[in-house]
Amino acid sequence: MNLDALYSELTLETKAKLVLLVMDGLGDLAIGGLNSWTPLEAASTPALDALTKDSAQGRMIPVAPGITPGSGPGHLALFGYDPLEYQVGRGVIEALGLGLELKAGDVAARANFCTLDEKGIVTDRRAGRIETELCEELCFLLSKRVKRLGDCEVIIKPGKGHRFVVVFRGKGLEGPLTDADPHREGLPIPNAKPVNSKSLRAKKTAKLVAEFYKAALPVIAKKKPANGLLLRGIAHQPAIPLFEERYKLRAACIAVYPMYKGLAQLVGMTKLEGAQTIAEQFERYLAEHANYDFFFIHYKYTDMHGEDGNFDAKRGAIEELDGALPILLQKKPDVLAITADHSTPCIIKGHSWHPQPVLLHSAYSGSDKLERFTETGANLGSLGLFEAKYLLRLMQANARMFDKFGA
Amino acid sequence: MNLDALYSELTLETKAKLVLLVMDGLGDLAIGGLNSWTPLEAASTPALDALTKDSAQGRMIPVAPGITPGSGPGHLALFGYDPLEYQVGRGVIEALGLGLELKAGDVAARANFCTLDEKGIVTDRRAGRIETELCEELCFLLSKRVKRLGDCEVIIKPGKGHRFVVVFRGKGLEGPLTDADPHREGLPIPNAKPVNSKSLRAKKTAKLVAEFYKAALPVIAKKKPANGLLLRGIAHQPAIPLFEERYKLRAACIAVYPMYKGLAQLVGMTKLEGAQTIAEQFERYLAEHANYDFFFIHYKYTDMHGEDGNFDAKRGAIEELDGALPILLQKKPDVLAITADHSTPCIIKGHSWHPQPVLLHSAYSGSDKLERFTETGANLGSLGLFEAKYLLRLMQANARMFDKFGA
Repeated sequence: MNLDALYSELTLETKAKLVLLVMDGLGDLAIGGLNSWTPLEAASTPALDALTKDSAQGRMIPVAPGITPGSGPGHLALFGYDPLEYQVGRGVIEALGLGLELKAGDVAARANFCTLDEKGIVTDRRAGRIETELCEELCFLLSKRVKRLGDCEVIIKPGKGHRFVVVFRGKGLEGPLTDADPHREGLPIPNAKPVNSKSLRAKKTAKLVAEFYKAALPVIAKKKPANGLLLRGIAHQPAIPLFEERYKLRAACIAVYPMYKGLAQLVGMTKLEGAQTIAEQFERYLAEHANYDFFFIHYKYTDMHGEDGNFDAKRGAIEELDGALPILLQKKPDVLAITADHSTPCIIKGHSWHPQPVLLHSAYSGSDKLERFTETGANLGSLGLFEAKYLLRLMQANARMFDKFGA
Repeated sequence: MNLDALYSELTLETKAKLVLLVMDGLGDLAIGGLNSWTPLEAASTPALDALTKDSAQGRMIPVAPGITPGSGPGHLALFGYDPLEYQVGRGVIEALGLGLELKAGDVAARANFCTLDEKGIVTDRRAGRIETELCEELCFLLSKRVKRLGDCEVIIKPGKGHRFVVVFRGKGLEGPLTDADPHREGLPIPNAKPVNSKSLRAKKTAKLVAEFYKAALPVIAKKKPANGLLLRGIAHQPAIPLFEERYKLRAACIAVYPMYKGLAQLVGMTKLEGAQTIAEQFERYLAEHANYDFFFIHYKYTDMHGEDGNFDAKRGAIEELDGALPILLQKKPDVLAITADHSTPCIIKGHSWHPQPVLLHSAYSGSDKLERFTETGANLGSLGLFEAKYLLRLMQANARMFDKFGA
């Protein structure tokens, strides 16, 4: 039997409030033997400690053993979707990260400005890493000159340095396509081709990309050093079952950074804009408490400092969140999960495969009788080690949203 | 999406050295309440203890909950292959155990000498458990008289007591066949038949086995008490993806006993011969350090003493390995996993289903802050409880061999 179908069949309406608080990249490693600490262990966290006494803990495998996820698969799993089944292309993630509002069926590509010689050979894939201002200028020019191709709309948005995003919006488009990028210097720009050669939609999309090149290249041909462009990760926004239909939960996203808002929007969550600090995010939750059943609150700084390998700053970010946590608890959610989309250990300075710790608090979570929420504490918890895609189901269960299976 | 395909797609080359140290049958049970010990807990293991301080621990399910594996599935899982997908027939395992060098497509059978009455009825399935010397004599005779059948080669090799192995080598052969063994006395020898009745190759193989009987039985017909033979577990060497291609790791096996060399050879590892003691095995690793990326080092005695139910000897075997461990650590592997293929609890005197403990050490394993590597310690570790087939993927992750999945 299909498990998702079973969950759906058993799902009951709820009046409970559920909060998924994601401390991005929270999980870390103790390096240096028996007396070493992770940032979470080293932090002073009185609010988390108080909550922990009546909570369950565990660790979650973000995707599969040993696999390090990007933010896309990391969050899709937290939203209860199998990240191997629902894959979001790099172009789509990049577009979401730049705050573009994608629609179902949009095809998005990551793009670079590059340098071409007179024969069309790529001599610098990043056009000497041009400044963001020049990139914005070139994107503005391209946007003005290449607005439409046939019945399709073209949306161009600048990113940082030489990077930008191109979105194709129209009927009957589909990715993925191979990259229009030789991936090294000394070669011409290859044509983007359908990965699945039988897809008529992908063929149409490949033709569209070729037309885009024909229209766009002359616009920048005389520019220096950025007289060419490369498209990669050309993919369409996948059809993902809507969160509200799948879980019977009206969901809202309270995030600061565009990518996480974008990922929430992918599954149909409402974006609640405006909050800048975690305290403001929690205030926003209080204000919107009556309007939604499920709140996804995203905190970026644990990941950011982990990426920098800055142990003290990561500990500080944890303490800052802990300091604000009493605001959230003014209207204590019926079910509160605090976790990460993946680990970002300071020693790795990047995402990793290490299972992230999770704390689950509800009237029915029970107490694991652990004094603190930490990686080593989580190793001992009643939730054990499980795949992150099941967390949402555990939250639903704690909200008493599942009928009994069988008699 | 197929997970193995994903792992392959994400796999990067590495300069790291990975070592899988298998203490066969290591896992055991504490019997006798709160103050009882397993052999691993009772052993004095200063070298393991020192390593543990900077390691992760967990427990591994060899195949599936409650399933007791033989050495074949136990090791295939450790080599990262799903033991339910890649099954190695008993005839093949027996042949490997006798040191036969099987080729892809070879069909192997376990064989017994037995006693037949004048009507061809099996009166003793083990021919009174004849001595090994007589078995060797009979095998020698059979080998001389039944070398070929049509276009196929027949290889006969004696084992212990009444046991031997028959290998059929030729084109277009395939198992499995049903046993040419009534499994009890008082019945004639049944014909071996294809398990899959549609396989033409299996039909050819069944015909070959019938011809073998026609040729072999007259050779020993006058012998007493061993005037007949039974073939069981008739199977071909399965096609298994090669280790080096699957993991991008040049792999070597440093084992003493033939079966483990044979299992390593099944997946294409290079056998490094000659070492007899665990100290010599570690010395061999030092000598070959530059020539391979992955070393499978097999230690038999923990299993052997577990099979005998000899607690003290099993503890002694653990201590012997611990005493030699500093040799291995002279060139410390970048990733070191120490574990078992299954548990062999002294009280069971045989393999068991109990998850075996595993220790994983690398610069990125983190410290679980456990003082010793033991079964109860492993229960508290960050690796949790997982299927043994994922260990190799975790080793690859610790060697930083996987690119990020998704953006």
